This record gives sequence, C-alpha cells and structure tokens, in this order.
Amino acid sequence: MANNLDQVFSAMADPTRRAVIERLIEGGPAPVSTLHEPHDIALPTFLRHLKVLEASGLVRSEKRGRVRTVHIEAAAVAEAENWLARQRRLWERRLDRLEALVRDMEKGPKT
Amino acid sequence: MANNLDQVFSAMADPTRRAVIERLIEGGPAPVSTLHEPHDIALPTFLRHLKVLEASGLVRSEKRGRVRTVHIEAAAVAEAENWLARQRRLWERRLDRLEALVRDMEKGPKT
Repeated sequence: MANNLDQVFSAMADPTRRAVIERLIEGGPAPVSTLHEPHDIALPTFLRHLKVLEASGLVRSEKRGRVRTVHIEAAAVAEAENWLARQRRLWERRLDRLEALVRDMEKGPKT
Repeated sequence: MANNLDQVFSAMADPTRRAVIERLIEGGPAPVSTLHEPHDIALPTFLRHLKVLEASGLVRSEKRGRVRTVHIEAAAVAEAENWLARQRRLWERRLDRLEALVRDMEKGPKT
C-alpha cells in the first residue's frame, strides 16, 4: 500500500505524465498516438512515460489490432488524493487544538 | 509552478518522507533528532530525506544554537492537494456528461 503510493506520487512528479492524466480524465480513453500528439517529445520517450504511469496503476492499456488504447484508473488517483485529504484533516484538527489553547489563555489565569 | 509540483510529488514518493510530513502536521514543529528517532535509518540518510523535503518547499527548518527545528509548509501540501482535487472535479464532470448521454439514449430515438 505504502509502496503503491510511492509509485503513484513518483508517476505524478512529471509534467508530461500529469498532462496525460489530465487528458484521460477530461477526454476519456484514447489511443497512444492521440495522447502523444500534443507532446513535443520522441515517441520512445513518451512510451517510457506511459510505462511509468501503467506500472503505478494510474492507467491501464489494451491493444486491439494495431491500436493500443489507454484508460485512467480513478482508484489510483483517489488513493493519492485520500492521503493528502487525510493530511489536511490532521492539519485542521491541530489548528482547532491551538485555537482552543489560545481561547483558554485569553480567559486568563484561574482565580 | 509545474516544476514545483514535480518536486512536491517527488518528495512525497517515499514512505520515510511521508511519515515526516505526517508527524509535522500532527505534532507541530520538531527538532531533527526527534523526527529521526522513530526511523531505523542512519542519520546521514535521514538528513538527505529532509533535504529533499526542504528543496520541494514542503518543510523549512531553522537552526538556533545547536538545534535545527523543522516546520511544515502547509501551502506546498495544499498545492499537491489542489491539483488532485481539480482532477476529481474534471472526473465528476465527465461522469455527469456520460450520465446525461445515457439518459438521452434511454429516451429512445426522436419520433
């Protein structure tokens, strides 16, 4: 599980790979050639990015005839978001505790 | 901006570094020695992890006398969460469009 978050965050740490994720989320499944088209990089380099995305579980692909179609795996995207949402909740809870502390201090020393 | 997300996601792609983020968010600022304590790795290795976190902007540190204290930078954590939250909104919008399409199809061909 922790290991998978490693791969998911690592896969997200690149602008080309994030652009592919955005494209698949917005536009739905697409062939490799369509996904490659807007990127000014060589196809082999682009295929390596797709491999990283696929290894992380963020996308899967299937080949029919000569066309390989790539799909987003929403569960892997959600896994990363859940970890971050949990951090935000912990953060908010700590702020609440600090606020309560400040309120107590403002009441002044017990007499 | 994109470059910073690269570093933020890359910094999150490691269980030790995620544990440090969690500890700082839950427990507040802490000295390096306290952060290192629960991790069964050599101090130089741990310091390298802290350097990666600091370079990404996820934490900052300050030295007073002989003690270096590490703080979380909530803004950098939020940046990563915002990107992911945006993906979820795009995803939900696409599902809404698909649902509308299915509803239209269920109404059958126009007569």
